[in-house]
Amino acid sequence: MDFAQVRSLLEARRSGYSLAGDFYTAPAMHELDIEAVFSNEWLFACNVAEIPRAGDYVTLDIGKTSVVVLRGKDGGVNAFFNTCRHRGSLLCTEPQGHAKRLVCPYHQWVYELDGSLLSARQMPAGFDRSEHGLRPVHVEVICGMVYICIADNPPDIARFKAAVTPYIAPHRPERTKVAYSETLVEDANWKLVIENNRECYHCVGNHPELLATLIEFALPDDPRANRDFQLLMQEKTALWDRLGLPHLPADGGTEFRCIRLPFHRGALSFTPDGRPACKKLLGDFTEPDIGSVRMFRVPNNWNHFLSDHIIHFRVLPLSATQTALKTTWLVHEDAVEGVDYDIETLTQVWRATNDQDATLVAHNQRGVSSKGYRPGPYAPSEFMLTNFTDWYAGKLAGYLEGLPSRHAPIRLAVAQA
Amino acid sequence: MDFAQVRSLLEARRSGYSLAGDFYTAPAMHELDIEAVFSNEWLFACNVAEIPRAGDYVTLDIGKTSVVVLRGKDGGVNAFFNTCRHRGSLLCTEPQGHAKRLVCPYHQWVYELDGSLLSARQMPAGFDRSEHGLRPVHVEVICGMVYICIADNPPDIARFKAAVTPYIAPHRPERTKVAYSETLVEDANWKLVIENNRECYHCVGNHPELLATLIEFALPDDPRANRDFQLLMQEKTALWDRLGLPHLPADGGTEFRCIRLPFHRGALSFTPDGRPACKKLLGDFTEPDIGSVRMFRVPNNWNHFLSDHIIHFRVLPLSATQTALKTTWLVHEDAVEGVDYDIETLTQVWRATNDQDATLVAHNQRGVSSKGYRPGPYAPSEFMLTNFTDWYAGKLAGYLEGLPSRHAPIRLAVAQA
Amino acid sequence: MDFAQVRSLLEARRSGYSLAGDFYTAPAMHELDIEAVFSNEWLFACNVAEIPRAGDYVTLDIGKTSVVVLRGKDGGVNAFFNTCRHRGSLLCTEPQGHAKRLVCPYHQWVYELDGSLLSARQMPAGFDRSEHGLRPVHVEVICGMVYICIADNPPDIARFKAAVTPYIAPHRPERTKVAYSETLVEDANWKLVIENNRECYHCVGNHPELLATLIEFALPDDPRANRDFQLLMQEKTALWDRLGLPHLPADGGTEFRCIRLPFHRGALSFTPDGRPACKKLLGDFTEPDIGSVRMFRVPNNWNHFLSDHIIHFRVLPLSATQTALKTTWLVHEDAVEGVDYDIETLTQVWRATNDQDATLVAHNQRGVSSKGYRPGPYAPSEFMLTNFTDWYAGKLAGYLEGLPSRHAPIRLAVAQA
Repeated sequence: MDFAQVRSLLEARRSGYSLAGDFYTAPAMHELDIEAVFSNEWLFACNVAEIPRAGDYVTLDIGKTSVVVLRGKDGGVNAFFNTCRHRGSLLCTEPQGHAKRLVCPYHQWVYELDGSLLSARQMPAGFDRSEHGLRPVHVEVICGMVYICIADNPPDIARFKAAVTPYIAPHRPERTKVAYSETLVEDANWKLVIENNRECYHCVGNHPELLATLIEFALPDDPRANRDFQLLMQEKTALWDRLGLPHLPADGGTEFRCIRLPFHRGALSFTPDGRPACKKLLGDFTEPDIGSVRMFRVPNNWNHFLSDHIIHFRVLPLSATQTALKTTWLVHEDAVEGVDYDIETLTQVWRATNDQDATLVAHNQRGVSSKGYRPGPYAPSEFMLTNFTDWYAGKLAGYLEGLPSRHAPIRLAVAQA
Repeated sequence: MDFAQVRSLLEARRSGYSLAGDFYTAPAMHELDIEAVFSNEWLFACNVAEIPRAGDYVTLDIGKTSVVVLRGKDGGVNAFFNTCRHRGSLLCTEPQGHAKRLVCPYHQWVYELDGSLLSARQMPAGFDRSEHGLRPVHVEVICGMVYICIADNPPDIARFKAAVTPYIAPHRPERTKVAYSETLVEDANWKLVIENNRECYHCVGNHPELLATLIEFALPDDPRANRDFQLLMQEKTALWDRLGLPHLPADGGTEFRCIRLPFHRGALSFTPDGRPACKKLLGDFTEPDIGSVRMFRVPNNWNHFLSDHIIHFRVLPLSATQTALKTTWLVHEDAVEGVDYDIETLTQVWRATNDQDATLVAHNQRGVSSKGYRPGPYAPSEFMLTNFTDWYAGKLAGYLEGLPSRHAPIRLAVAQA
Repeated sequence: MDFAQVRSLLEARRSGYSLAGDFYTAPAMHELDIEAVFSNEWLFACNVAEIPRAGDYVTLDIGKTSVVVLRGKDGGVNAFFNTCRHRGSLLCTEPQGHAKRLVCPYHQWVYELDGSLLSARQMPAGFDRSEHGLRPVHVEVICGMVYICIADNPPDIARFKAAVTPYIAPHRPERTKVAYSETLVEDANWKLVIENNRECYHCVGNHPELLATLIEFALPDDPRANRDFQLLMQEKTALWDRLGLPHLPADGGTEFRCIRLPFHRGALSFTPDGRPACKKLLGDFTEPDIGSVRMFRVPNNWNHFLSDHIIHFRVLPLSATQTALKTTWLVHEDAVEGVDYDIETLTQVWRATNDQDATLVAHNQRGVSSKGYRPGPYAPSEFMLTNFTDWYAGKLAGYLEGLPSRHAPIRLAVAQA
């Protein structure tokens, strides 16, 4: 496969239909996705609550590229390629940790938390430390959510920031702490993981725990909605308007989505019985009945912001057929485990839902790997999949156009369509 | 590797010699085999005894393509690409099972057992169910053996059917039941698995259990045969002639082979002591001393039909270096386990033989992966390997010729010959 | 990636800096290394002490190519491609063993220990055994160390042999026995394994057990050396001169290195407390205080020759990201375990060091796989890494130049630099 073949696949694509099999299965397409999408977009990395103190860090892998995100001495968040400037060893070797300074485990080069090279023993007189600082990665903190971008020239994220802040800020993500976190390796292409999340058409047949509280509809005016839902919406939105909490869908185009929607009548949180998972509400909330803000941003992040907790979901591709999904549950920073919340009640609905989805996408992956697979039509309730695949196709096309016409810099090898 | 390189390898091939290493080791050659051979030939899938009732199914993987073979409501056998027409999820997720209708686990699209789409909830008014039925796969049932072909235009199978039916029909495979089944993953290319089966030159050094009853010779006029064997043949063929059971080699060319041969004098079945494995004989047999019909068909199937049981062997490539071998033991449908047969006695000879062969082909695979490997000459008793490799080379060559001269549709990358 | 891309990478290389990421990570580069380096150089295979009797053998894998090294009936060492000339099965299936003759496990073709084909049952009259002997591999035994080369025309090894023999011969490697051996699979490219060994810049931060006895300096005139070291060198070299033991650095260019250096004052061997690991000294030694000869040869071997034991290290690439390191401890052939030495004391320093290095190179591998990795400058004490990478780059370049300009015979596919 060369770029001409990718272009052919893109040209043959039909909006409103699932993608051709190669997009989900070809190792070369995985590499192209890493280049064109994940190395060229803002990615959700973590919440600042995961790195509360100076020197706290998390690492994440974008393809084969390890990035370290850390809290600086000034309280700000920095991110760097997690690779020593000497001989390239990984600096921080764990998924998360704490370090006063970043000391390479190989030859003990020492970097400050701002990435500058403090010492490099045995290097000769002419060695210029200032030219061997850590290579920085772009960072944008939005309501406590850390987004990073390893591109030299990141795309604009200001529109997203402006649009979602009014929805999310009242939940005060920056005043939370991590209650629980899990990472699943799912046997599916990352795009199938995203598509799975972008519709609830599959919920009724698969997610009994989730549907105990979640209403399937993604829009206030879903044509399937009955009179009960309409009444519920009227009642809740009147309350939210009084509280000054935005709820109408934000205009995120294909880039993002943000909306506040109610739970089933009587339910307040993602718990088996709908009761709050944490007695201590987030931020300055006194009213628990505020539904949830559902926020999604391409390519790798969706979230639920409730009155009592927040859940972040982070998607990172591992290969054409494997994806890491990290889920993080956050509660008020002053909430006490065993008193205000217990982890089992807090996490069981989405742990069950994640497990169910992992099975669904694994079957989806196996099915689209078939020579007999043909892209199929999305249902109307899968409109967000059309958004996503349209965005994805445009992202790829833009990347291909932006390339110089000379030697193709990445390897592409895809099986017969 | 491109097609020109494959052609070069084919042109350099010497009939009567094992193939060049690339044929057995290159990932690209595996993909070519899946395209040119396994997607373009009739493959043994199962015996109808494995799907006795309407809605019973088995699934099998041809490369990355899952196929479901099922019993329809009319008692006939249908096969489909096991991929939902909505978003491509696998429909039947287990190797075998039962379903009144095929319901996609993802969004519950429902298909009839004839593949037609019965319901697709939430799809809009203009959606045409008749255009979204399951994509069919060709099926041919021959004496209870189900062969499938995923090509649009399958090759002819009528000659095979006509030739082998007289040998097999008296054993009544369609009136059997599954006594036992095992699947081995062998660490070798599928062609080495087939070559291993196509000669008994290796038996004396490796298969003591098998040689307790099996005579090494594959032909009645094997030049190595001694006077004892000739007398045995005369005696047994006279008996079989009286019983109306064909035994002379069928003229299958390189496509298939069918012959009835005796066991060692006194032996009646593949058991440690040669006594029948099942008291209840197959079909209408009353005479147990009928040797075995050995039937092989390219590319993936060999079988033994005895008086008291049948063994099917099904070969499916998993990668250039791994192959799945499924072995199924069938007895009379009315035979009772523990009364008429026990599984240990029935299966132990071929389970031992399979395990020994798995080791042999794994060593063969490692050896032909060497830069020091050169194709070597087949012994005269390995004449069936010449048949097989000649057929294989012709199949590849035909595929390459049939391709349009424009862009090569599959990826090919093979190490130096 | 094609050869033009490799040439570009070589041209962009800066001597004195670590290599570009592709050299350490690309599967295609692994294949090129197997072709251009490991199939085209002398490789350390084993010590003759590992195959003391006629028929004793060891096998090793050069890429996918298995080679058997054995002791012949005349006491000499032979090596062959470990692949039967019939259908290519592996002949010797274990890492080491003993065989009167080499009998293929598949069809029992029998080869003499000189590789000639003794018998091939069932082969027809015209079959010429003399044309089906095992394909030989070049062998050179240097002071008991067996080097092999699978190239048709091996490079010269005479200079190496002449240069290192005076250092090594007094340790009498050919009069030793194997006390212990271990093979580690390290998660790093073989070049990172070699680079890790070629400097002790990393020792102080990582190898407490090793530094109990080893002095970090690799040269008698290391600019970091203090007055103590200089005095120690003067004292020890005076002793070694009296004993007739060479110690000055041999002139091996980038091909090899050989030097005798002292342990820390008071230490005599690689043991936790510096006392000898074996009471029975090697060869005719009576003086234990002779430091160690450190000998390295590209591409796959380093060694320590002490007064009481020898350690060989053998490196073989398994893939772009995995390498097998075999370490063998040898003591005097008459030394008695439990009396003269115990394995724990003998091996613990280097087993600990190997484990620590395995972790270091795994982190190095992950770091250089990053898009953010850039080649970094070697420290002055890493001068041997400059030697190694210069040699490697030259070896690759020479291979590329030597190739005919027609169709590129190996597959090359490398990600963006």
